[in-house]
Amino acid sequence: MKLTELAEIVEGDVEGNGQIEITGIGKIETAGRSEITFISNPLYEKFFETTEAGCVIVGREFEAKLKRKDVSILRVDDPYLSFIKLLEMFETNVDDELEGISDTSVIGEHTELGENIFIGEFVSIGRNCRIGTGTRIMSNCSIDTGTEIGNGCLINSNVSIYKDCRIGNNVIIHSGAVIGSDGFGFAKNNDGSYRKIPQTGNVVIEDNVEIGSNTSIDRATMGSTIIGKGVKIDNQVQIAHNVEIGENTVIAAQVGIAGSTKIGKRCMIAGQSGIVGHLTICDDVIIGAAVGVSKSITEPGIYTGYRARPHKEDLRNEIRIRNLEALEKRVSNLEGQIKKSE
Amino acid sequence: MKLTELAEIVEGDVEGNGQIEITGIGKIETAGRSEITFISNPLYEKFFETTEAGCVIVGREFEAKLKRKDVSILRVDDPYLSFIKLLEMFETNVDDELEGISDTSVIGEHTELGENIFIGEFVSIGRNCRIGTGTRIMSNCSIDTGTEIGNGCLINSNVSIYKDCRIGNNVIIHSGAVIGSDGFGFAKNNDGSYRKIPQTGNVVIEDNVEIGSNTSIDRATMGSTIIGKGVKIDNQVQIAHNVEIGENTVIAAQVGIAGSTKIGKRCMIAGQSGIVGHLTICDDVIIGAAVGVSKSITEPGIYTGYRARPHKEDLRNEIRIRNLEALEKRVSNLEGQIKKSE
Amino acid sequence: MKLTELAEIVEGDVEGNGQIEITGIGKIETAGRSEITFISNPLYEKFFETTEAGCVIVGREFEAKLKRKDVSILRVDDPYLSFIKLLEMFETNVDDELEGISDTSVIGEHTELGENIFIGEFVSIGRNCRIGTGTRIMSNCSIDTGTEIGNGCLINSNVSIYKDCRIGNNVIIHSGAVIGSDGFGFAKNNDGSYRKIPQTGNVVIEDNVEIGSNTSIDRATMGSTIIGKGVKIDNQVQIAHNVEIGENTVIAAQVGIAGSTKIGKRCMIAGQSGIVGHLTICDDVIIGAAVGVSKSITEPGIYTGYRARPHKEDLRNEIRIRNLEALEKRVSNLEGQIKKSE
Repeated sequence: MKLTELAEIVEGDVEGNGQIEITGIGKIETAGRSEITFISNPLYEKFFETTEAGCVIVGREFEAKLKRKDVSILRVDDPYLSFIKLLEMFETNVDDELEGISDTSVIGEHTELGENIFIGEFVSIGRNCRIGTGTRIMSNCSIDTGTEIGNGCLINSNVSIYKDCRIGNNVIIHSGAVIGSDGFGFAKNNDGSYRKIPQTGNVVIEDNVEIGSNTSIDRATMGSTIIGKGVKIDNQVQIAHNVEIGENTVIAAQVGIAGSTKIGKRCMIAGQSGIVGHLTICDDVIIGAAVGVSKSITEPGIYTGYRARPHKEDLRNEIRIRNLEALEKRVSNLEGQIKKSE
Repeated sequence: MKLTELAEIVEGDVEGNGQIEITGIGKIETAGRSEITFISNPLYEKFFETTEAGCVIVGREFEAKLKRKDVSILRVDDPYLSFIKLLEMFETNVDDELEGISDTSVIGEHTELGENIFIGEFVSIGRNCRIGTGTRIMSNCSIDTGTEIGNGCLINSNVSIYKDCRIGNNVIIHSGAVIGSDGFGFAKNNDGSYRKIPQTGNVVIEDNVEIGSNTSIDRATMGSTIIGKGVKIDNQVQIAHNVEIGENTVIAAQVGIAGSTKIGKRCMIAGQSGIVGHLTICDDVIIGAAVGVSKSITEPGIYTGYRARPHKEDLRNEIRIRNLEALEKRVSNLEGQIKKSE
Repeated sequence: MKLTELAEIVEGDVEGNGQIEITGIGKIETAGRSEITFISNPLYEKFFETTEAGCVIVGREFEAKLKRKDVSILRVDDPYLSFIKLLEMFETNVDDELEGISDTSVIGEHTELGENIFIGEFVSIGRNCRIGTGTRIMSNCSIDTGTEIGNGCLINSNVSIYKDCRIGNNVIIHSGAVIGSDGFGFAKNNDGSYRKIPQTGNVVIEDNVEIGSNTSIDRATMGSTIIGKGVKIDNQVQIAHNVEIGENTVIAAQVGIAGSTKIGKRCMIAGQSGIVGHLTICDDVIIGAAVGVSKSITEPGIYTGYRARPHKEDLRNEIRIRNLEALEKRVSNLEGQIKKSE
């Protein structure tokens, strides 16, 4: 694609040669002659002098310290957003070709398939399912009886979705994720053994959710485990039965959320944190990495620490612990002074 | 099924219309006219006034504050247990229909299949395996050479079981679980690189075990990694080579147990905890969430903390840390008083 | 195989009957008459008196307290290394038989297959891939368009490899691992929702790497996520986009490494530790279990603690915390003495 054509897409102005052919996207340190890159963070401006990219997207105010005749400039309002737009465009071109239902897939009775879908090799879809328009299901996925998947979804390879789940539109699920496995519920028998509590509910995933690889979302004991609209979940996250997650909440890798906990909207939970069961976390809460949350949170804000507390409090506490050596010395001094004075 | 028939199953007494047809189970807040629900916890009694369920299971002593002609009552000794019984019944009805061996599965030579089994689409079973009576293996599972699975098991989709493993009766394994992958064992070469130590043992899973989605259980270097009878393991748990877990121990999500550690019977290990290798944990130990265990435990009891210690000790310590600000002030006061008195 | 033949392989000397047939390998506590075992650690010497193994590999200096006519001895320089050599030999014999391409696999156009490869049931390989000589791909794997896998690799069942990844030679990947899933990158919209940043890079895995079951390695946003030569990664490890890991670094189970972090060579990271994004960890760093690393590390050494610090410092701090009770008492005593003296 010609640079002038890209410029139209991002509503930018070309300085230099607009006729060069751009075939891809690159990092400023490594991009080649036929690639376009960007500078958004001033720390990266120094790379303008050495980049081998054919074109660099820059902001309206950017001024090159070194003029470079061999590098075209594409000047835009927001270089980062423009860059994402181009990334999306190049990405889409590649995946457009997936369409059709492979001969090796098996689709159960009374299952409805939308138009323009792609179903890869060795995909098993049970009876009474519904797959929406434009949805792509990659190879070796298993989708059990009665599950419905909306329009425009991408289910990557080796995903398992148990029966009767509901997946909205434009949902992306990465490989190895398991949706709708049984919640971990047992009643103790008198002899110390356990009896399984049937998990008869399902999982409901709303529109525009993305779920990372090898993440597990258990079905509800009764009712639904609910992943709200626009939620983004990273890899290896564990969501237990009857959990509810509010819209546009973001959950990083290896987080675990125990049964029946409700998380608000627009929360951010960093990697490896854990939230115990039956809690309520209000909207707009930020939880740091590897934090343990064992009480409900009712105030928005940042929470950190092995035992979650408001971040400032946690920091002050951490400093006190680091000052323990000094405190011990002050006590020893006092003891010495008292002894001397006696 | 008629309510009077359900009443017989749980040995309860109907008050109201016993002729209504019950088709399912629901939460008291959301159950509909053809569903049955229950009240066990007094906190939920208030919902009796508003529930739309056709019938509510209650205890012998339950007294409705508001009489409701439109809601039947099923009075039993233990509402929760009765409810689980009905959950089980409705659940079983659904899954009974799975039987037969799909045309797309591939079963190796000299593999023995029991009666009434179900093998789903794209299941690969190697040579010299044995699958017991009534066992169901869902789509896209891979079971390697020489592995034996007992009677009445449910192996959900996309499970991998490596060669020569032994799975007992009535075992449930959830999607994405991996049984029998190589233990993590390497010998260091002089140049800093590593040489793989072959992992020639296997995994033995005894009767009535349940294993969660995306859980990994590594094979032993030699001998067996052993999961004892009745053990319940949640999602994303890591069990390393040569670990042994005693009967009826329960392990919550994202726990990691390092190589050769032995866990006793009836232990409970909460989510995200880690136990280092070559330890022994005695029977009846409760380990809290996100606890790090780096020494053997020889006394039953509750253990908590980033570095595991007896729970009461851990709590006292936590309080001391929270009181550090006060302690610093007391030291400052003392310093002030000393200074003044000099 | 005759014991005398084994003796030649490990350059050892037989004492006792060299004509016995050895068919396998065992632990000294459980090995049978046709198995060979070893003693390397003096703690295990006591088992020499009771073992039922046919032969025990021992060091040059080993002296049996009890003479046993029924147990042959194989005397070598390094019993442990000799034992690994024999383990490898017995292991290899078993797997040699895997060869050929199963009828149920589907291989895309323009994909090149090397010689002596094995492709199991229900393996899907996309277009424009390359699979090297002697590589084995087990059942239900999904390998997407444009991915290249080198020679002598073993890809276990149910592994997913996304498009355009590069896997070197002699790489082992365990079941359920996901290579090349999208990095977790989103830009926030004004309404609080998120827009996906396309992840157009790939994953490069160099020679001799081993990757555990259910591990996730995300593709780079641009460029490559790189796993260096000889790196060993255990189960359920999370490697985010654009991470780079240096040669011969070892990462234990359930570790998480956030985006763009660079780890040096010969590091060892114990289980459940987490490293936040955009850090640099230098060569030869040892990170303990469940450690949180939130700052770059520039000095080799051992780091431990909920908030990583040099191990000695962490230990001293831990002791201070454990001494808080004593410190409180000392302060109370001082307060008492001051009060009395007033």
